[in-house]
Order: sequence, then structure tokens, then C-alpha cells
Amino acid sequence: MDIATFAGLILGVGAVIVSFIMEGGHLSAIIQAPAMVIVIGGTIGATVITTSMETILRVPRFLGQAFFGKTPEPLETINMIVRMSEKARREGILGLENDLKSISDPFFRKAIQLVIDGTEITVLKTILETEIAYLEERHKRGIAVFQKLGGFSPTLGIIGTVLGLIHTLSNTAEPDRMAAAIAGAFIATLWGVAMANLVYLPIGDKLRLRHEEELAKLDLILEGVISIQSGDNPRVVKTKLLSFIPPNMRGGEM
Amino acid sequence: MDIATFAGLILGVGAVIVSFIMEGGHLSAIIQAPAMVIVIGGTIGATVITTSMETILRVPRFLGQAFFGKTPEPLETINMIVRMSEKARREGILGLENDLKSISDPFFRKAIQLVIDGTEITVLKTILETEIAYLEERHKRGIAVFQKLGGFSPTLGIIGTVLGLIHTLSNTAEPDRMAAAIAGAFIATLWGVAMANLVYLPIGDKLRLRHEEELAKLDLILEGVISIQSGDNPRVVKTKLLSFIPPNMRGGEM
Amino acid sequence: MDIATFAGLILGVGAVIVSFIMEGGHLSAIIQAPAMVIVIGGTIGATVITTSMETILRVPRFLGQAFFGKTPEPLETINMIVRMSEKARREGILGLENDLKSISDPFFRKAIQLVIDGTEITVLKTILETEIAYLEERHKRGIAVFQKLGGFSPTLGIIGTVLGLIHTLSNTAEPDRMAAAIAGAFIATLWGVAMANLVYLPIGDKLRLRHEEELAKLDLILEGVISIQSGDNPRVVKTKLLSFIPPNMRGGEM
Amino acid sequence: MDIATFAGLILGVGAVIVSFIMEGGHLSAIIQAPAMVIVIGGTIGATVITTSMETILRVPRFLGQAFFGKTPEPLETINMIVRMSEKARREGILGLENDLKSISDPFFRKAIQLVIDGTEITVLKTILETEIAYLEERHKRGIAVFQKLGGFSPTLGIIGTVLGLIHTLSNTAEPDRMAAAIAGAFIATLWGVAMANLVYLPIGDKLRLRHEEELAKLDLILEGVISIQSGDNPRVVKTKLLSFIPPNMRGGEM
Amino acid sequence: MDIATFAGLILGVGAVIVSFIMEGGHLSAIIQAPAMVIVIGGTIGATVITTSMETILRVPRFLGQAFFGKTPEPLETINMIVRMSEKARREGILGLENDLKSISDPFFRKAIQLVIDGTEITVLKTILETEIAYLEERHKRGIAVFQKLGGFSPTLGIIGTVLGLIHTLSNTAEPDRMAAAIAGAFIATLWGVAMANLVYLPIGDKLRLRHEEELAKLDLILEGVISIQSGDNPRVVKTKLLSFIPPNMRGGEM
Repeated sequence: MDIATFAGLILGVGAVIVSFIMEGGHLSAIIQAPAMVIVIGGTIGATVITTSMETILRVPRFLGQAFFGKTPEPLETINMIVRMSEKARREGILGLENDLKSISDPFFRKAIQLVIDGTEITVLKTILETEIAYLEERHKRGIAVFQKLGGFSPTLGIIGTVLGLIHTLSNTAEPDRMAAAIAGAFIATLWGVAMANLVYLPIGDKLRLRHEEELAKLDLILEGVISIQSGDNPRVVKTKLLSFIPPNMRGGEM
Repeated sequence: MDIATFAGLILGVGAVIVSFIMEGGHLSAIIQAPAMVIVIGGTIGATVITTSMETILRVPRFLGQAFFGKTPEPLETINMIVRMSEKARREGILGLENDLKSISDPFFRKAIQLVIDGTEITVLKTILETEIAYLEERHKRGIAVFQKLGGFSPTLGIIGTVLGLIHTLSNTAEPDRMAAAIAGAFIATLWGVAMANLVYLPIGDKLRLRHEEELAKLDLILEGVISIQSGDNPRVVKTKLLSFIPPNMRGGEM
Repeated sequence: MDIATFAGLILGVGAVIVSFIMEGGHLSAIIQAPAMVIVIGGTIGATVITTSMETILRVPRFLGQAFFGKTPEPLETINMIVRMSEKARREGILGLENDLKSISDPFFRKAIQLVIDGTEITVLKTILETEIAYLEERHKRGIAVFQKLGGFSPTLGIIGTVLGLIHTLSNTAEPDRMAAAIAGAFIATLWGVAMANLVYLPIGDKLRLRHEEELAKLDLILEGVISIQSGDNPRVVKTKLLSFIPPNMRGGEM
Repeated sequence: MDIATFAGLILGVGAVIVSFIMEGGHLSAIIQAPAMVIVIGGTIGATVITTSMETILRVPRFLGQAFFGKTPEPLETINMIVRMSEKARREGILGLENDLKSISDPFFRKAIQLVIDGTEITVLKTILETEIAYLEERHKRGIAVFQKLGGFSPTLGIIGTVLGLIHTLSNTAEPDRMAAAIAGAFIATLWGVAMANLVYLPIGDKLRLRHEEELAKLDLILEGVISIQSGDNPRVVKTKLLSFIPPNMRGGEM
Repeated sequence: MDIATFAGLILGVGAVIVSFIMEGGHLSAIIQAPAMVIVIGGTIGATVITTSMETILRVPRFLGQAFFGKTPEPLETINMIVRMSEKARREGILGLENDLKSISDPFFRKAIQLVIDGTEITVLKTILETEIAYLEERHKRGIAVFQKLGGFSPTLGIIGTVLGLIHTLSNTAEPDRMAAAIAGAFIATLWGVAMANLVYLPIGDKLRLRHEEELAKLDLILEGVISIQSGDNPRVVKTKLLSFIPPNMRGGEM
């Protein structure tokens, strides 16, 4: 679970609600179906056009990463690779077959499987790098979806408000109620700007952060698996992999 | 047919209309000829200046690609290239002459024609890469047209609204009807922002996506045709080409 | 004459005027000297500061290019170079002297003059590339002027409107005429946004397009003249130069 | 202490307050809890989502750097390195052990420790460059936090104002008090724009300046320590290091 | 004296004043101390935070360059270098000592001094390139100051206007005078936008232009001095240096 995502969302939305209540407002005043339909529906519509059905279907998974993704702990991965590297030197590459089940990361498991299958080192490298390249592509499209949502949302809020004003101003016969009607028109702007700045754009940024962490981890695994394949000395493997992670995450190791 | 383009357009425009009707408005209130003339006419005018007549005439074709373009299925293309590569080794390059008619993609057909004509490999590569470069140039100009449309449209909406306000405010003698007149002036803003965010900009983004898919396909064909020309082993050709496409699109092939 | 520039300008400005007249306005309402003085004068003033007197004096020439510039027809240039290349092989380099007068492009003429003068090939290349580099610099400054004009114009419109509002609101004693006075203040915004979006920015974009076409033509001439100097086979010259232009512009040549 | 940061903050905030008082306003009119809750709380909330808990916890340290960070004085560092280089040649590398305590910069101390430990030169370089790379990464995330704060703050001001307007316009029965109520709604915009432009964004820029100075210093130390390790002539070391700093900071040295 | 800077400033500010007077306004209406304090003071405050005291103190010198800087006349410099190159071949490098006093450019004088001192050619090049790099750094910080001023100024105008509106709307008891009070609040916006667009941003652009011209001149001197040092043939020196300047500035020389 990503505490920053939850804490930030609660803090951001909470600040809006608390401030509104402090001024004596009722939430029912801003939860208005027409404003929400035009802002949320219109924003999703515009964003769907920009991308492919395939990327749209992947959005729930991206949300899961933003809310529940864990910062990878590279030290664990490094220790695992070093242990496997020792085993491979002791028992041979085939000895790694038993470890396959204990690897939870699918990229890592696939890489070790390829090593066990005796894949040549340049082919192994090409396959894994291609895999990383496609993952990068997929991630970027996911991040782009949230940036597009964040970009279209305020303008759809403006469209909603202008529509509301046009309707309001041309119909209100009683000037007394005009102020309230104008207020209602601004609810769409509120939703458009708030969704963009409290939800879409921050989540897009969090996904980018996750993406960078994930890439760093895959690069680490790629390097480690190639070292195992090459039969490098486990101590050398450890030193090399430790240089991939920030000094303060290296435990007491170096 | 590109479902995402249609679905997004229906969802986006639908959300605007549904929201307006939920608030009790009539569509006739926003379909106003002067606002549409200034926003759509003015936007197209400004965009035409920025580009050449040639690119303008190509716009309908770009719209066709955004709405009806199919995501290329590279696996089919790969299988076709592999079959041709086998045939070329069995019957010689000239044996490919019968296959020419069955190739629907003009770039692919031209490339095979050049191979049959015995074009030297460096010349072949240069010709095909030049072809790709010009296609890229043409695509980019098409994408730029929609970005320009999306950029000019809101400002022409503002021009329309300001013009309307100037006319309204300086003439309305009866203050009672002024609110309705001001409302009318905002219809131009509505059209300008809505056309940009629900039509022009999303379609520009979709064209960019199409463009990237198309380029990836041409690169694949270029590589495949050169392999055929070089008489590579069909199995090697297959492995090489499969590495050009995402793992989940490779069928059970690898 | 560049039809797209004229057609776009007429369409854009026309749409604004037609829309205003459809709503029953009179053009005299928006042609107001104070608004035009502040918007056009202020924009030009700010832009003049950003650049040098020399570039400012070149602006009429840039306007000429945007309105009357012709898309270069590279096929003609190629045929000319090929003919000269044949002649140079037949009669020697000095035989080109008679052709000098028939070359209208000054860059082309200078290049051929240098060849006739027996300039060494590396020196020739350096001189012509330097010439192209300075042309590029000059063009970029011209494009930048129009982008600056387009950037300052809407903000000067805002300055004009704010000035108008300050004057209007603090003086109008009769509330009845206040609406008309506010309307008057918005005329400056109208001019600022309209000049930027219908004139300055589109012309800047057109100049950029012209600039790219011009550069492509000079690169073609540079390559061709060096081929003549080197005494290349005319057929080879033709093939090489044709690869510089888009396939659909090559006539039936290849 | 960074005088520019303090002076700028006092000048900027002071100008706002003085101007307000000159017009006869009371500060109590703008220090309103609901506006501050929504703008400051909402901005921090949105920013927390975009980053990790780890970076958030580092914010006070970044503020300390912006307010109390000293511009490094490279001449001192250079003189220190030159003295150590002389000592190392006279007494051997181990002679530097006594100097360790007198080095206050942790990066410098770590580097000298590695030299004393007899770390091989390529390993030494890799370790120090990795260290610099992670520092750069951490700095960039800190700068990004302030840029995000500066980006979200005005939009949360707008959210606060729209919320206030909705509440105000739909409830005020007495038109007399409506003007005052609208005025209150704008306090949120004021806080949003002022926090961004007087606090967040300028501090982000100051951090970037600090970051560049810090990087330059670390590069200098890296180069110097490698020279010590290589046993370079102290005079050569001095000349080389002086070329890393601006001529006017070199004292009378060169 | 830079005529474009003066002419542009007079034209820009003049257009604003003339337009205001044409509408019947009095300048006293817009010269209001509170608005000027918040806009000018606040903008300078925010900008001071972003940079160092050192750069702030250099601002008057930057203003001097924008208003009184002369476009360098490279042809003069080239002729001087060529004359020195001839003298150095005739009388030896030491013969240049008498010319030192006649060189006004400090960079040029320092370079010649280094040549006379017999500095080795690679060292000479490194020293001069370092000098250029630091000058570039200093120039960039100066340009950045004006861009920051231009970026903060309109937002401080908005802060001033919002402050004014809050004060005005919550206090004005007489609705008759409210319009005039609102008008007063907008004076801050006027100052913020006008200072940015008529002063700060154009001057920043002019400084960038000056910076590019200065760099080109220093590159020319660097190349020339190295040629003198190497004892190149004066005619070769001239040809080489002339290729550094635009053809139309070469006089009748080539």
C-alpha cells in the first residue's frame, strides 16, 4: 500500500471539504449530477479518443499500482541473485530449477527460466531488453492517459459552466434567484479543476515515479541474471549490483 | 473501424448533451449560426494560413485514418514474410511474382517489386527508407493541422464572445433582456472550447498513435524484405521479426 | 502567390466579420482608434525591443515571402543541374559560363560562379554551407519576430481593456451608459486576440514552412553543384538528387 | 545564511502587506482559516500524492538549504586539496589520516577515507560518481516538490474561490452583503497565487541554484582526490583545480 | 546606443499613453503608489529569492548592455587580428607588445598578453575557453533574472487586484462608488502586465541577442589569436576569420 498516495488524497480532498464546512456549506450543494456527468463523462470521452481500447482497459491496473504498488526493495533482490549465483557455481545452472517457484516477479522468473534453458547470452540480453522496452512503452501510455485526463478535465469544467450560464441567464425570470443559478453553473468548474488537480495529475505523477523505480529494478535483475549466466564470482556480483542502489539503501553491506 | 474513436466521441459529446438536458436546456439554445460561423470558419481560416493547400486537401484522408484506421496486425505480416522467404529460397526470387497481387499494403508491394527487379541491397534500403521518411513528414503535417485547429479554436471562441458582448452591451436598451443577451455571447466560447477538446485535439492524438503503429509496421516490412533479398534462413527471419512486436502479440510463437 | 495564405486570411477574417454582421453589428463599432493604437503600436514596440533594427527592416520582405512565396519546384532545379553536369563533361567546366545568366536563384548562381572560378571542392563546400547557415539564422530571426508579435498582442489587448475599464468605471456617472462603456473596453481585447490568432501566429507558421522548403532546395543545389565539380556521371547525379525529393514530386522519373 | 532568500522573502511579502495597508486594509481581512485550510492543505495533499513519503520527510532539510545554505567557497577547498596533495607526496597516503577529522564535508571525508584504504583508482571513481548521481537524484526530487507545490497552489486557490462563490451566491438573502461575501471568496485565490509566487516557486529556483553550486563543488573534490591518489605534482593539481572555478573567484592565484 | 531598445520602449509605452489620453483619461489615474509598491516590490522580491546577491548586483550592468550595448563590428576585429598576424611574422611575437594598449576589449587584450608570455597553445586554448564558459554562465543568469521578473510581474498584478477587490468590496457602503473602487483595483493588473510585456520580457530577449553576438565575437577572437600564435599566413587567417561573419558584413573583402 502506498501511504503517500492515500495520505495525499485524504489530505487534499479533506482540506477542500473541511474548508467548505467551516464556511457553513453543505456537501449536497456541490454533488450535482449534471455537473458530474459533463465533467467526468466528457473528460473520459475525450481521453478515450486519444488512445486505444487496449490502454483504456489497463487503467484499473494502473490505479492499483498508484494506490497499492510497493516501492521495490532492491536489497532483497540483490541478496536473492547473489544466493542464486553461489548455487549456480556450486551445483551448476540446472540447480536453479528449484528456486523458480520462489520467485514472485514474473520478469525475474522468465529470465531465470531462460538461463536454465541454456539461452545464449546475447540472445538472453536481447530478449530481456525487448521485454523492458515494451513494458516502458505500456507504462508511458498509462501515464499519458492520466495526463490527458488532467488536461481535459478543467476545460470540460469550463464547458459545463458556460452551458450552465447560457441556460441560467436566458431563462431566469426572477432576478432574485439568478445569483443562486449562477452559483450552480460554477459547480462544473469546481469538479473539473478539482478532479484534475487532486486526482488525475497527482496520480499520473505517482505512476511516473513507480515507473522509474520499476525500470531500475528490472535493470538490476537483467544485470544480475547475466552475471549468473556468465558464472561471475558471487562477491563480484554483489559489489556490482550494490552500486545500482542508493548508498542509504545498502544496509550495512557497503 | 476504430472503436475507441467512435466510443470516445459519443461519450464526450453525449455527456455534454445529457448534462445540458438534465438541467432542462434545449439544444436549439446552443446551435446558433453566428457562433458556429466565427468559431469553425475562423479556426479553419487561421489553420489554412499555417500550412499548404496540399496538406489541407489531405485532411479528409487523415479523418478516415482516425475513425476507420485499423491497428495493424503485425503477426499476419510476419507470417506472410516468412512464407515468402521460404518460397524465395525454394523457387528463387522470381517465384515471388505471383504473390505480388495478394499484397494489399502498397509499401510492401513496392518493396517486393524492387526485390524481384533485382535491386541491389543498399539501393533497396535507401529507397525504402526515403519512402518511410516522406511518409513520416506527411503524417507529421497532418497531426500538426489538428493541433493547430485545437490551438486556434478556443481563442476564436473568445473572439466570438467578446464580439457578442460588445454588440450586446452597447445596444440592449432593456436591462431585463441583457442577461439573456450575455448568455448568447458565451455560446461562441462554448463552441470554441468544445470543438478543441472533444474533436480536434483528441483526433490529433489518435493520429499520432496511428502514425507510430504505422511506422513500426513499415520498419518491420523493411527488415523482412531485406532478409528475403539476402536469402536468410526463414526460421532466423521469423525470430528476428518476432522481436519487433510486443510479447503478448506473438501468439503462441515464442 | 501562396493561395493558402490568402484563402486562410480571407476565410478567417471573413468568418469574424460575417458572424458579427449576422448578429446585427456594424463594423464601425469595432474599428476604434484608441484600441488599435494601443494593441498594434504597443505590440510592435515590445517586439522591436527584442530584436535588432536590421531584422525589423527585413519584415516587409518576410511578409512578401508569406504571401507571394512560391513552393520551390525541385524537379526543375534537378533537371537544370543534370543538364549542366552533362555540359560540363562534354565541354569542360568553363562551358557553364553561358548558363550563368539563365540562373535566377542567387545562391545557385554564386555556387556555379565558384565552380567556374576553379574553387577547390572543400573550400566550395565550406563557403556554401556558411551561406546556408547565415540564411538559416536570418530566417529564424524573422520567424521569431512574428512569434513575438503573436505573443505580445493578446497581453496588450488585456492592457488596453484594463485601461479602458479603469477609465470607464471611475468616470461614468450614468449607470445606464456603463454597459456600453464596458463593451468599448473589450474592443482592445478583441483586437489583441484577433491580430495574434488570425495574422501574426499563422504567418509565423507559414514562414517556418517556407523556411524548411527553402533549406531543402539549397541542400539540393549544394549537393548538385558538388557533383558537377567532381565530374560525376549525369545519370548518377540525377538518381542521387531525385532521392532528395518526395516520390510524388519526381514526375515519371523514378 | 542566504541573504538573498531572506531579503527577497521580506521584500516580496512586505510589498504585499505595505500596499494593502496603504489602501487602508486590515491584515485580519485576509487571514481567514477556511481559505488557508483549502489552499495550503489541498496543495500539500496533491503534492504528497505525486511523490514518496521519503521525499516529503526531507522537505525541512531542503528549506534549510534554501534559507541557510552557504555558497561553497571553492578556493578554500582547493587550498585544502593542494595541502593534502603535498603531504601525501611527502609522507605517503597514510599521512592523510590525521587530516580526516578536520574535513567537515562528508563527501570529501569519505573520498579521502577511500584513498587511505588504498581503493583502486577506477573503483574510487565509480564509487564517488555513483554517490554524486544519487545526490543529484535526491536534489531533483526536492526541487520537483517545490515546483509541484507552486503548480498546484493557484489552482487550489481557484477551487477555494469557486467553492466560496457557490456557497455565497446560493445563500445570501440580503443583496447588500453580497459584495462583501464575494470579496471573501477571493481570499482563497489570493493565498493560492501568493504562496506559489512568493514562496514555493522562488524557493524551488533557489534550490536549483544551490544544487548546481553543490554539484560543481563535488566535481572539484572528485577531481582533486583522484589527483592525490595518482600522486600528481601539487602545482599541477592547483592549476587544474583553479580552472574549475570562475576567474574572479581565484583570488590572486591566477 | 541600441536604437531598437529605445525606439521600441518609446513606441510601446507611448502607444499605451496615447491610447489612454485619446479616450480622455488622465495619467494620474494610473500612477497609484499602492499598485506600484505591490507589483514592482513584490516582483523584485520574488526574483531576488531565485538568484544570488551577486547576480542581483549585476543587474544595472545588464540594463546598460540592453540600452547602450553596441552590436560588435567583427570586420574591425578581423582587420586588427590580420594586422597583428602580419606584424608577428615580421617582427616576432614580442613585437605585439606595443599593440596591447590599443586593444579595448579585455578578453582580446588578455589573450594577446598570454601569447606574448609564450603560453603553450593547448593551455592558451583552455584558458580562453574557460573564460568564455564563465562569461556564458554569467550572461545566462542575467537573462534568467529578466525572465523571472517578467514571469512574476503579472501574477503580482493579480495579487494586487485581488487584494484591492477584497478591500473594496467588503468596505464600500455606497454602491455608487463601487464601480470606481473596482476600477482602482485593476490598476495593479495593469502595472503587472505592462511591466512584464513592455519592459522585463523584451529586455530579456534583447540581452539574449546581445549574448549571442558577444559569444560570436569571442569565438572569432579565440580563433584569431590561436592563428597568430601558430604563425599562420595572414592571408589564410583573413579567409578563415571572414567565414565567421555573415556575407553582407564582409565589406568588399570577399
